[in-house]
Amino acid sequence: MGKNKKLCIIFLRLLALGATLSAAIVMATSEDSTTVLNLTFDAKYDNSPTFVFFVIANAIASAHTLLVIFLPSNGLFPLIVVALDVIVTLLLTSSISATLAIAYVGKKGNAHAGWLPICDQVPNFCNQLTGAVIAGIVGVVIYMMVLLHSIHSVLNPLLF
Amino acid sequence: MGKNKKLCIIFLRLLALGATLSAAIVMATSEDSTTVLNLTFDAKYDNSPTFVFFVIANAIASAHTLLVIFLPSNGLFPLIVVALDVIVTLLLTSSISATLAIAYVGKKGNAHAGWLPICDQVPNFCNQLTGAVIAGIVGVVIYMMVLLHSIHSVLNPLLF
Repeated sequence: MGKNKKLCIIFLRLLALGATLSAAIVMATSEDSTTVLNLTFDAKYDNSPTFVFFVIANAIASAHTLLVIFLPSNGLFPLIVVALDVIVTLLLTSSISATLAIAYVGKKGNAHAGWLPICDQVPNFCNQLTGAVIAGIVGVVIYMMVLLHSIHSVLNPLLF
Repeated sequence: MGKNKKLCIIFLRLLALGATLSAAIVMATSEDSTTVLNLTFDAKYDNSPTFVFFVIANAIASAHTLLVIFLPSNGLFPLIVVALDVIVTLLLTSSISATLAIAYVGKKGNAHAGWLPICDQVPNFCNQLTGAVIAGIVGVVIYMMVLLHSIHSVLNPLLF
């Protein structure tokens, strides 16, 4: 693999690290409170298991990226990296889809189920959540690009 | 590829077709109604965009499987099949995660957001939804097995 290509992949992995790490941190620090009839309600990420899953998935992806940058690129390591990249991409896709589904109910509510939207009451919480989801989507898109490249570079020495 | 292996993969694909098709049909036919204070409420899959996404994703996966079974296995076709398998696996993972997230709120509610569980009111709807999710999970697991095999069989002639 050319040195430029290698540097380009490390750059992409660092970008992915930045995206998944900020997604996890922004989600984990999201908080807002509202007062209804003298009662104060707190909105935090750990109020929903889906948001906790989102933080864990992005933390795992960040740890994976850090690990992969320092792994040697000889022997069986590239194959292991491709396998791990596939698993982490599936994990990120799953956590973002679940978070989007819950965030949509938080934003629009669901009249049929009698679930009211909560974003008007806790706007700061919803804004941070939106930021976290955008960072998460950026992360998974970079992951998919890196994955395409790692599959190609594992195939490459066999093809040519 | 040996004839037995080919038959085994077609068998797995037919199983996946059965699973994704039943997931789509069971979800699309899920319905229940409840009467509260003389008002009747209907619970249907199209009350939530997440459940509609689930039906569409499983329908796409079913169509993909049907198409792939009749595709020839020479030239560039196996590579195209691997690429499509990856996309469909991501699509199924995404739809099942989102559906599980919403189904969990339907089952347990979310006290922090003031969302009440609805499964006690519409048990038949929840049971059908559970069946659809289980069929969906079976489908995506078989898809992952087929994907592993197709990646292996694309690599195989290059490796040996």
